[in-house]
Amino acid sequence: MKVVKFGGSSLASGPAVENALNIITAESERQVVVTSAPGKRFDSDIKVTDLLIKYAHEVNHGRDGSAIAEQIFQRYVEIGQYFHLPIEDLLPLKDILLGLPKQTYPNKNYLLAAFKAHGERLNAKLIAKILQSQGVKARYVDPKDAGIIVTGTPNNASVSPESYQLLDNFSYEADEKLIFPGFYGYTLAGHIATFSRGGSDITGAILARGFHADLYENFTDVDAIFSANPKVVDDPQPIHTMTYREMRELSYAGFSVFHDEALIPAIQGQIPINVKNTRHPEKRGTMIVPEKGFKPETIITGIASGKHFGALYLHKYLLNKEVGFTLRILRILNKYKLSYEHMPTGIDDLTIIFDRDTLNDELIDELCNDIQTEISPDHLDWISDYAIIMLVGEGMRDRIGVMRDIALPVAREGISLRMVNQGASEISIMLGTEAKDADRAVAAIYDYFFKQGE
Amino acid sequence: MKVVKFGGSSLASGPAVENALNIITAESERQVVVTSAPGKRFDSDIKVTDLLIKYAHEVNHGRDGSAIAEQIFQRYVEIGQYFHLPIEDLLPLKDILLGLPKQTYPNKNYLLAAFKAHGERLNAKLIAKILQSQGVKARYVDPKDAGIIVTGTPNNASVSPESYQLLDNFSYEADEKLIFPGFYGYTLAGHIATFSRGGSDITGAILARGFHADLYENFTDVDAIFSANPKVVDDPQPIHTMTYREMRELSYAGFSVFHDEALIPAIQGQIPINVKNTRHPEKRGTMIVPEKGFKPETIITGIASGKHFGALYLHKYLLNKEVGFTLRILRILNKYKLSYEHMPTGIDDLTIIFDRDTLNDELIDELCNDIQTEISPDHLDWISDYAIIMLVGEGMRDRIGVMRDIALPVAREGISLRMVNQGASEISIMLGTEAKDADRAVAAIYDYFFKQGE
Repeated sequence: MKVVKFGGSSLASGPAVENALNIITAESERQVVVTSAPGKRFDSDIKVTDLLIKYAHEVNHGRDGSAIAEQIFQRYVEIGQYFHLPIEDLLPLKDILLGLPKQTYPNKNYLLAAFKAHGERLNAKLIAKILQSQGVKARYVDPKDAGIIVTGTPNNASVSPESYQLLDNFSYEADEKLIFPGFYGYTLAGHIATFSRGGSDITGAILARGFHADLYENFTDVDAIFSANPKVVDDPQPIHTMTYREMRELSYAGFSVFHDEALIPAIQGQIPINVKNTRHPEKRGTMIVPEKGFKPETIITGIASGKHFGALYLHKYLLNKEVGFTLRILRILNKYKLSYEHMPTGIDDLTIIFDRDTLNDELIDELCNDIQTEISPDHLDWISDYAIIMLVGEGMRDRIGVMRDIALPVAREGISLRMVNQGASEISIMLGTEAKDADRAVAAIYDYFFKQGE
Repeated sequence: MKVVKFGGSSLASGPAVENALNIITAESERQVVVTSAPGKRFDSDIKVTDLLIKYAHEVNHGRDGSAIAEQIFQRYVEIGQYFHLPIEDLLPLKDILLGLPKQTYPNKNYLLAAFKAHGERLNAKLIAKILQSQGVKARYVDPKDAGIIVTGTPNNASVSPESYQLLDNFSYEADEKLIFPGFYGYTLAGHIATFSRGGSDITGAILARGFHADLYENFTDVDAIFSANPKVVDDPQPIHTMTYREMRELSYAGFSVFHDEALIPAIQGQIPINVKNTRHPEKRGTMIVPEKGFKPETIITGIASGKHFGALYLHKYLLNKEVGFTLRILRILNKYKLSYEHMPTGIDDLTIIFDRDTLNDELIDELCNDIQTEISPDHLDWISDYAIIMLVGEGMRDRIGVMRDIALPVAREGISLRMVNQGASEISIMLGTEAKDADRAVAAIYDYFFKQGE
């Protein structure tokens, strides 16, 4: 049995949904379907999720949102009409949308979560109806009925372990297609709470684990996950197979095709993931598989980069003789609820690398003040334009000369390496450069590893 | 004015002391002299400090130590007789030695410290007498009279800041040589406490700072500090000039010519240090100078390595999403009063590198148990044969291609790099290898940087 998940752009219009339905019906094993909310049909289009956020905002401010509700409904009408669904099949969706403000919610955040979730919810209902109209035995299943229980904040929830027991007990026919909305679950008190944005990937992974699927097919709008960002490297090679761990390390530094958190249920259930293109389902896509038994074909599987980092540099004589020194630094970070990305340490030096998005100038000032007062370093510098490049590959494990092969093209390009962090992970090397050099470094390293034979 | 310190091998015998005295009297600026205890005269010889430790041990166990005291006294007699000192000038030293057990000490550790300190103390008294017998205006100065106040444990004390005010007020003649014993000071309660072993370097640095010396000359038994360990690299280049910071980073990983802690007072007073050879005082030796104004002549100043490390490797999915994760690890380390050397972090991996000398197998087991219980990592490994190689040079700052120049020879030798840590410090790169590969790696990198022209 396979779980099949479609992204927003794969369900944005009638023709797109038709494509998806062909994929669903092409194989009887594709039994569990997870929907996203309709995405963009064209560049300047607005995603349904964004319309729903606007709708929730209006309602949260006591204003009438019915015009936006109508705009949202029209997106579903457009798809339904493409399949010649009678309007009476569509009107219940409108009722649900217009009924949303009348429900009760514990607070405004729960209202927002419930509104957002309806992009997926209505799409799943619609797709079940379309399949039924085509004579396919299909059933809409609400996460509540299947038992997707979540905890945490209403707009950034996590799945509860008991969900897997409930899913295990969920019964369905061998010839039935189950259509699940992605992105959300229910709290124990019965309220809707969503995963983080793009969380339909997470629902798919939860269902794949819960139903013990043989494969989790993740349909999106690219032919494969590429070994480098196509905006940085011309025509990068597709990755045919990679491990969970490789995916995780590449996601970290910028690979955004597959949702990071969605890996966890797949890993727990050891379910292979296949990222494929809705428009080219015949292409093999990218398989993401367990480490066990995996035989790498190349040294480096992928190169990712992120430019959204900043670094705090600290020098103090005899720093490493001070027991508990790092502890004091971490206590300061903890006070501001700040998590850091990395902390390379020298003898008397320490660099703390932050995700810039978690910081603002005021916080940086306060942090520096605290460190100055408590630690009295001899030097303290803030570097704001830090880029991190991740080179990931199971093939670099125990392989000699990888650092040379990275350092050669970087030096040839005249790029200065601000940081090299190798050794924490066996399958990746992390480089730091100035933000302005990052793309050139990625391209040079890519060419060295992937185009040497040419 | 210069402070001149002599190491134990430079004061081990009559001829050695004669050499030292020639150096002292060769320049009128060499006014402050710091002595060590007589060291080894030949390979199987026993250092006076070790005899004193044995003496203290006997006394601490309630046994008669006078035979050892006599053995110690004979070392001074031998030197005194070389200079034809009358025996009545030497007998007071014997009285002091034999009187040591009759003094009162707060505890056995203070007794040990006081006994140990007399290697330097008696040598300083003896050298002052010899100089006087040669018509030189010389004066023995006890640390108590000059004001070297220390705090901390009796056998691992630290200098108190007030010492510098007291030294500032200490008056002496412009044509007078002051002979100070190294290695110890006095607590506020008036008891002797020593610095860590080899601590005469520290006394020299304290006096250099306290007396605002123009130069701190540190006489030892090597022509210079070498750019690599002569046991690993054939005929390594001497370092003519290096910065405090370079010395500090090289000391860390194994350069043991100059005592690490002795750098601090020198840095605080910005006193340049000249490490020279007692037997070849005409050679320029190695200058250790402030960073300001220093112009590096080579990219790498020195390569050091240490093989006494172990590493704990830890992998846990979504590790870097857990705020306060490292904090929890550090709290566990703190519980065992363990300080770590480095902690490279990956996305979901963490390696903690320890000095093996601070650990035993039982402690490693307890630590792993605690981490297992509190953190539940997916993998936890202990690697016991870790070597750290430090490449240090102010010249590598902002220089492009250094990593390539390091990685090339290492790869050519077929050596696997377990860790690369660059970026915390601007003037050093740290490599990790298996202990068995460390010497080969050092030799290969040395040859690449220092012998490319040959």
